[in-house]
Amino acid sequence: MKTPKPRPSASYSFVMRLTYPNRIGMFAKLTQTIGKHGGDLGSVDIVNPDSQHMTRDITIRARDHEHMEEIVKAIHKIKDVVVANVSDQVFLLHLGGKISIRNKVPLTNRETLSMAYTPGVARVCTAIAEQRSKAWNLTIKGNSVAVVSDGSAVLGLGNIGPEAAMPVMEGKAMLFKEFANIDAYPICLATQDTEKIIETVAHLSVGFGGINLEDISAPHCFEIEQRLQERLDIPVFHDDQHGTAVVVLAALLNASRLGGRKISDMKVVIIGAGAAGTAIAIMLQNAGVKDIIACDRHGILNSKTRTDLNEEKKKLAAITNPRGISGDVNAALKRADVLVGVSGPGLVHAKSIRLMAPKPIIFALANPVPEIMPEEAASAKAWIIATGRSDYPNQINNVLAFPGIFRGALDVRAKRVNEAMKLAAAEAIAGCISNSELSPEYIVPSVFNRDVVQRVAEAVTKAAIKTGVARKGRAKT
Amino acid sequence: MKTPKPRPSASYSFVMRLTYPNRIGMFAKLTQTIGKHGGDLGSVDIVNPDSQHMTRDITIRARDHEHMEEIVKAIHKIKDVVVANVSDQVFLLHLGGKISIRNKVPLTNRETLSMAYTPGVARVCTAIAEQRSKAWNLTIKGNSVAVVSDGSAVLGLGNIGPEAAMPVMEGKAMLFKEFANIDAYPICLATQDTEKIIETVAHLSVGFGGINLEDISAPHCFEIEQRLQERLDIPVFHDDQHGTAVVVLAALLNASRLGGRKISDMKVVIIGAGAAGTAIAIMLQNAGVKDIIACDRHGILNSKTRTDLNEEKKKLAAITNPRGISGDVNAALKRADVLVGVSGPGLVHAKSIRLMAPKPIIFALANPVPEIMPEEAASAKAWIIATGRSDYPNQINNVLAFPGIFRGALDVRAKRVNEAMKLAAAEAIAGCISNSELSPEYIVPSVFNRDVVQRVAEAVTKAAIKTGVARKGRAKT
Repeated sequence: MKTPKPRPSASYSFVMRLTYPNRIGMFAKLTQTIGKHGGDLGSVDIVNPDSQHMTRDITIRARDHEHMEEIVKAIHKIKDVVVANVSDQVFLLHLGGKISIRNKVPLTNRETLSMAYTPGVARVCTAIAEQRSKAWNLTIKGNSVAVVSDGSAVLGLGNIGPEAAMPVMEGKAMLFKEFANIDAYPICLATQDTEKIIETVAHLSVGFGGINLEDISAPHCFEIEQRLQERLDIPVFHDDQHGTAVVVLAALLNASRLGGRKISDMKVVIIGAGAAGTAIAIMLQNAGVKDIIACDRHGILNSKTRTDLNEEKKKLAAITNPRGISGDVNAALKRADVLVGVSGPGLVHAKSIRLMAPKPIIFALANPVPEIMPEEAASAKAWIIATGRSDYPNQINNVLAFPGIFRGALDVRAKRVNEAMKLAAAEAIAGCISNSELSPEYIVPSVFNRDVVQRVAEAVTKAAIKTGVARKGRAKT
Repeated sequence: MKTPKPRPSASYSFVMRLTYPNRIGMFAKLTQTIGKHGGDLGSVDIVNPDSQHMTRDITIRARDHEHMEEIVKAIHKIKDVVVANVSDQVFLLHLGGKISIRNKVPLTNRETLSMAYTPGVARVCTAIAEQRSKAWNLTIKGNSVAVVSDGSAVLGLGNIGPEAAMPVMEGKAMLFKEFANIDAYPICLATQDTEKIIETVAHLSVGFGGINLEDISAPHCFEIEQRLQERLDIPVFHDDQHGTAVVVLAALLNASRLGGRKISDMKVVIIGAGAAGTAIAIMLQNAGVKDIIACDRHGILNSKTRTDLNEEKKKLAAITNPRGISGDVNAALKRADVLVGVSGPGLVHAKSIRLMAPKPIIFALANPVPEIMPEEAASAKAWIIATGRSDYPNQINNVLAFPGIFRGALDVRAKRVNEAMKLAAAEAIAGCISNSELSPEYIVPSVFNRDVVQRVAEAVTKAAIKTGVARKGRAKT
């Protein structure tokens, strides 16, 4: 079965400004042409009509860049139609950046100026100099997160460098604001050296209440996170690891609830032994899963038979694969209950799913093209299917986790995000779906369900207080 | 002559919530008490009246913290008045920080989410990966400035550390936004080591279009700025040096215009040989002033007679003091035309002013208490007096310079802020006052004159293009 073509989407939407003779049939000809070439017609706005000519802005969604060009070319060919302008909506949205700074009070008179800046500000500085913890209250620290990347593993694009990572980090900052009202700022680093990254982040951390590491490649992401967390007294959270792991656990908890099978009895195979795969393995173990097998592109991680493993994979091999099996992915999948893919597009096929135990649970999270398309997985009798995509049910999306986790952490000025807090977050996400709502096509709440952030934040707050990493707040009895 | 007490100001304003019996004469008693103790009555709001009691919020401005306490104590003593609450307005304004992040588009539906974040954002990342300079257009880089401090020389407070410096850097970010619509973010560093500061700022600079160094102590501020500017291709600008120097030159240009004396014929004495003093000396020289004498607390900088000078002061001594004189400040001031004070409160007295040439020009810029109070300087027949204060004429305030300088630099994506750009900025500031408006009490435009930023930005833009440091824009013919 071939991987199906993607559907037209907003990610490839563009606006054409077209001028054409104002006569019957012209607009129909346009829409026919767009439809014939598979374009998805969006809004149609009138710009400038007169008795002779009509000018319209037509929004069209395409499948990909080539498809955009194909449609534009076809419209160019229509007689009497003049293409005045073609604007790519995604690039338009990025012009000048996606976030800005807002002043909480305007500085339009001397009174406010003298309170927000000199000389009034000096008293606030003095108060913080006397007691540094007051910076949590009297500066943005208490609500701010640095979104830090070295651009070494950006989305599925790989090592594209820090400049090219900026749009993702800005987007992440937007998510922080939109979903958790957190003021996050994107900081991309002109170094990919482990030591230099650690030094830089440690030095710039003063004014932040948390550090969100993002799109940093394995294995140096592990060391960077760990050593920074040891050094700093604010949360250092590599979202590619833990955000994903939290949502995967949430989904698995709901699959467990729906199927009446305990997660401690499930056999789980993880395909992909990078940052996300490692974090998922550890998180599932901490939640009680006993039988986990991790695979990389060379097959099962087995500390005895595999001699090619780096330090991080050795560690992962040592704590997983309790039955000590070796071989390829299919060997791992035999009679497995759960497959978690965090690897690459199309790496899993229907015949592999058929090797699994009855009612297989498939989380195929490679983005934008999963390890196996939901249609193919369904054809092999997969019971529950989740992907990273918004156009299929059960979207595993980090945005369900990190906004609430950081909201909760900041609310109690947590010193770190520990296992108990992540576990609480996963349970809170799972709990957003009631027993009566739960179904194989609905084990993960919608990213636009605003309850999620609030529930996650509350759960994280409680766990932080209970485990003693909160600076603020009291355990509720 | 004693330094007069400061006037009550917004920097020490507080609100008292008072409940008292609703009878004639009670309010008068309150205002009398406030007036008797020198408090300045601000707004009076009714909170909760009934037939028996009245509750009001009364805003009062005091001179300083002790004065605030004195007034509160006096009101506590009035019979039948209950003080429900006293809130310090400056601290209230700082609660939770003074700036926040704003998303330029809301992420409330899948369409926008998929354009601003994955999967749509990937195309923008790819475009930047192919041509890094596109980050100027497609991310916040083109409009963003990092406001960086190590907290080693904050306002007049000294080395109070990075946490305590945050309120100033946040305030600076507010000024950038309010006056130049620039998105600036405060970054305070957990190190005061020159090498570490340079490394950290260089690494974090990727996403910024400029670096504003702030409140970093001399002499390491010189090396930090210079080496960062050599390393980075965006402006690195230590505002305490150059912002001050630009406004001082602007003021001197207008004093020159008003008095009909060329600045090249003026004898200038600078008291204070730190960051600002050094930058002022260099800037005035570049503008054509020939006879400059710099003094520190031990007297005139003279490269022959002074053996106690550090490297930076040696350099300054070598390029100033052309007549090779030595001695104390009074020796320097003999027959001088201009005194620029960037040192400490009350260090200059009337008798020193009397040593100067006729029509002395006095810029006493120590904040909040100048080297000599304007009243005392006037008593010694000073002709023009400027200070850093908003409650006297001719306020020398950096906010006249840095917003326009950075606005102009960002508009043309300048690689640095060079001497020509600073000179252009000074001339533009001076030019905001017409010949007919110019007077000894009006040589510096108001900080709220919105023309200033625009004129400075335009002048800086032109100078950047002309001197070849602009990446964008064409010289206008």
